[in-house]
Amino acid sequence: MSKVKPALVQGTRDLSPDMMYKRSYVISVIKEVFEKYAFQPLETPAMERLDTLTGKYGDEGDRLIFRILNSGDFKKEVPADVWQTAESNTLAGLICEKALRYDLTVPFARFVAMNRHAIALPFKRYQIQPVWRADRPQKGRYREFYQCDADVVGSTSLWQEVELALIYAEVFEKLKLPVRIRLNSRKLLNSVALKAGAGEKFGIFITILDKLDKIGRQSVVDEWLKAGFDASGIGSLSSWIFDEKVDLLKVEKHLGAENEGLEEVRFVLEKVKSLNPDAPLLFDPTLARGLDYYTGCIFEVVAEGVAVGSIGGGGRYDNLTGIFGVEGIPGVGISFGLDRILLALEERGLTGFAQVSKACVMVTGLSEEDMPFAAEVAYAFRKAEISTELYPIATKLKKSLEYANKTAIPFVAIIGEDERSKRSFTLKNLKTGEQSSFALTDNQGWMKAFSVG
Amino acid sequence: MSKVKPALVQGTRDLSPDMMYKRSYVISVIKEVFEKYAFQPLETPAMERLDTLTGKYGDEGDRLIFRILNSGDFKKEVPADVWQTAESNTLAGLICEKALRYDLTVPFARFVAMNRHAIALPFKRYQIQPVWRADRPQKGRYREFYQCDADVVGSTSLWQEVELALIYAEVFEKLKLPVRIRLNSRKLLNSVALKAGAGEKFGIFITILDKLDKIGRQSVVDEWLKAGFDASGIGSLSSWIFDEKVDLLKVEKHLGAENEGLEEVRFVLEKVKSLNPDAPLLFDPTLARGLDYYTGCIFEVVAEGVAVGSIGGGGRYDNLTGIFGVEGIPGVGISFGLDRILLALEERGLTGFAQVSKACVMVTGLSEEDMPFAAEVAYAFRKAEISTELYPIATKLKKSLEYANKTAIPFVAIIGEDERSKRSFTLKNLKTGEQSSFALTDNQGWMKAFSVG
Repeated sequence: MSKVKPALVQGTRDLSPDMMYKRSYVISVIKEVFEKYAFQPLETPAMERLDTLTGKYGDEGDRLIFRILNSGDFKKEVPADVWQTAESNTLAGLICEKALRYDLTVPFARFVAMNRHAIALPFKRYQIQPVWRADRPQKGRYREFYQCDADVVGSTSLWQEVELALIYAEVFEKLKLPVRIRLNSRKLLNSVALKAGAGEKFGIFITILDKLDKIGRQSVVDEWLKAGFDASGIGSLSSWIFDEKVDLLKVEKHLGAENEGLEEVRFVLEKVKSLNPDAPLLFDPTLARGLDYYTGCIFEVVAEGVAVGSIGGGGRYDNLTGIFGVEGIPGVGISFGLDRILLALEERGLTGFAQVSKACVMVTGLSEEDMPFAAEVAYAFRKAEISTELYPIATKLKKSLEYANKTAIPFVAIIGEDERSKRSFTLKNLKTGEQSSFALTDNQGWMKAFSVG
Repeated sequence: MSKVKPALVQGTRDLSPDMMYKRSYVISVIKEVFEKYAFQPLETPAMERLDTLTGKYGDEGDRLIFRILNSGDFKKEVPADVWQTAESNTLAGLICEKALRYDLTVPFARFVAMNRHAIALPFKRYQIQPVWRADRPQKGRYREFYQCDADVVGSTSLWQEVELALIYAEVFEKLKLPVRIRLNSRKLLNSVALKAGAGEKFGIFITILDKLDKIGRQSVVDEWLKAGFDASGIGSLSSWIFDEKVDLLKVEKHLGAENEGLEEVRFVLEKVKSLNPDAPLLFDPTLARGLDYYTGCIFEVVAEGVAVGSIGGGGRYDNLTGIFGVEGIPGVGISFGLDRILLALEERGLTGFAQVSKACVMVTGLSEEDMPFAAEVAYAFRKAEISTELYPIATKLKKSLEYANKTAIPFVAIIGEDERSKRSFTLKNLKTGEQSSFALTDNQGWMKAFSVG
């Protein structure tokens, strides 16, 4: 075995215990709310067939898919002349049949298409798993990151949009993170684009609009004009669409009352507000959600007062499984951006939930003879469901206290000759320095000491 | 977008909601006990550098590692003549720098080696993540499967073996799965091999012993003799080692009292039994644990009465991080085989813990006008922390009941015109067929109805 300098793959990271505690907390809140709204858990394999993934994320996306080399003699499977002349791009398709999932949506579509006869519609699933993208690594952007998605397929009912907005509101309320949930409709954007003479170039229209946060209003208008859209239409549009106080009545004036997109947005807003008046749901006609496959309502969540970008997004799509030849299954879904949520929580100082160590108490024996009784004390603590570490060797107090401090364990139970003979222990609160003595049988006494600490 | 027939990668599977509930339950039990014993969570990336993984699992293992093709123009990086003449095996190392993790132990060793100055020793971590192996797929063997490991590094104290045995006992007691925890020591096996004249060929000696379950006693003895070990030594050995009632005193007679392996086993047995007399821990001098890197105590867990193979294993190793140039960090760890534990639980019929759906109640509105009140009822249930599904469209009862039955939701709250006008609902227990009416404000009444169901 040759010795290798230990290193990570570029763009990946280890999740140390303190990071794990924070992440697990956020994930558990999201999961709990998903399940309360009757979404069911699903996991799909890390590896999908390459042809399941390619062609779904655009050319740029295709380049970012991690391909897995075929096992065995992959060279033999490629004709010699092709091996010689073909370019990497073509060769990749010949020597790789598998790839790592790029998101959770396409694997979910594959699952629904494969199991459409076995599942009852509407089917509500949530999925919390890592995905992989061969992006250029940069600060805060990793090649492996978690997605947390909830989707419901098989029904066009707008009540599902209402429920998804309620989920967003409840999760961030539970996390004590103030947010804005932006709501718009692709149908409304369609009408807007028509007014601006951009009906046929809807994609270009919203791609430019999507840059609003980065380039500002004037540049959006300039780019629209440069794209050749109707100047007077753009002029009239820019008189209201960027207005932060724009409301549905104002939009109605410009688009007319009979507008499906407008009605969708109104329905969702009204119903959500009547159920949860505190839900921070806001209509925003400038919300575009990039070039995604959305066709109806769209959502985006932004944390208030911290510049970490969007921490969630989603919307309705018409034909999720069409790519697999199964037509007519509409759906709607939302996603939580775990890493950015953690970033936002830390920026706002809301990290009280994090613990460096979950161990509540460490038991330490001062001599070899004290160890069996120390183990007995540790066992009694665990029977009382207290997370307990047994310092595994008899040692001077200084050394084991140093360890407890390093790992942020709040209590130490000390066993010396005196304690052992009395079947008791000395409990030290490392924060206050306080010490008291308990008989091992005095469960009530020491349980109380732990809960006060 | 071309249409693709939806399919899974061979040897992988989707984990449907009912599988997920069972798995999550088992994982939560394991996790809870790990944390009670002060093990801390860690996650490492799915991708490791190829040179981190190769050479650690033997030639056969190396072949089973999934390699990830370099992104971009990988062909350009290989000299033209090498591209032409090299074999797949060599080429794989030139066009792949990354690979999928094969187990959790090597990534953990990499983590410890990289972070040795930041972590306090002893460092106790647990890790529950999937691993990938390019094995030939067969029934019950997947190319992606979960490992659940707990290891402690940085101390040679035998108290850690004691604690790991207690963890095994507690997890399987909580899962209500009767098991045998087999215990042996590599040091004891070493003495045994010496007695059999196989001291220099210890590897061959234990590889043959490891086949005992498959080939039986006589064949083990035959193979030992064929390997050229001392016939009289083998003869004397076989007089006691296969005896199911062999105890430490008997072994002492054969190996002498001053035997380190024997002392280790005795210490662990005694301490575990004194703390938890019900722990099903048994000394078994025939336990060998394959060709692993163990150097001290070894464990293996077998479910009683079901033939699913071992459902857990582990042991002590001397030099985990030596492969990364960091010497002198000993460790000991155990692993749970999640899939086999689930198999064993199902074979024994212990699947009461599984739920098809966690949704407790579905709310359904009979007409469009009933939907807002139905949503209000659903929202009230969720406020009371009850998992609730809102059937998203107004529909005849027959259709929504059919759905509730298919997804195994136990209660349905029905809202019609009458209910709506009274702000009440009719609650139907789908198991008993019983129906009763509740005012929405009668929280106590309906909470009680749910808890009885």
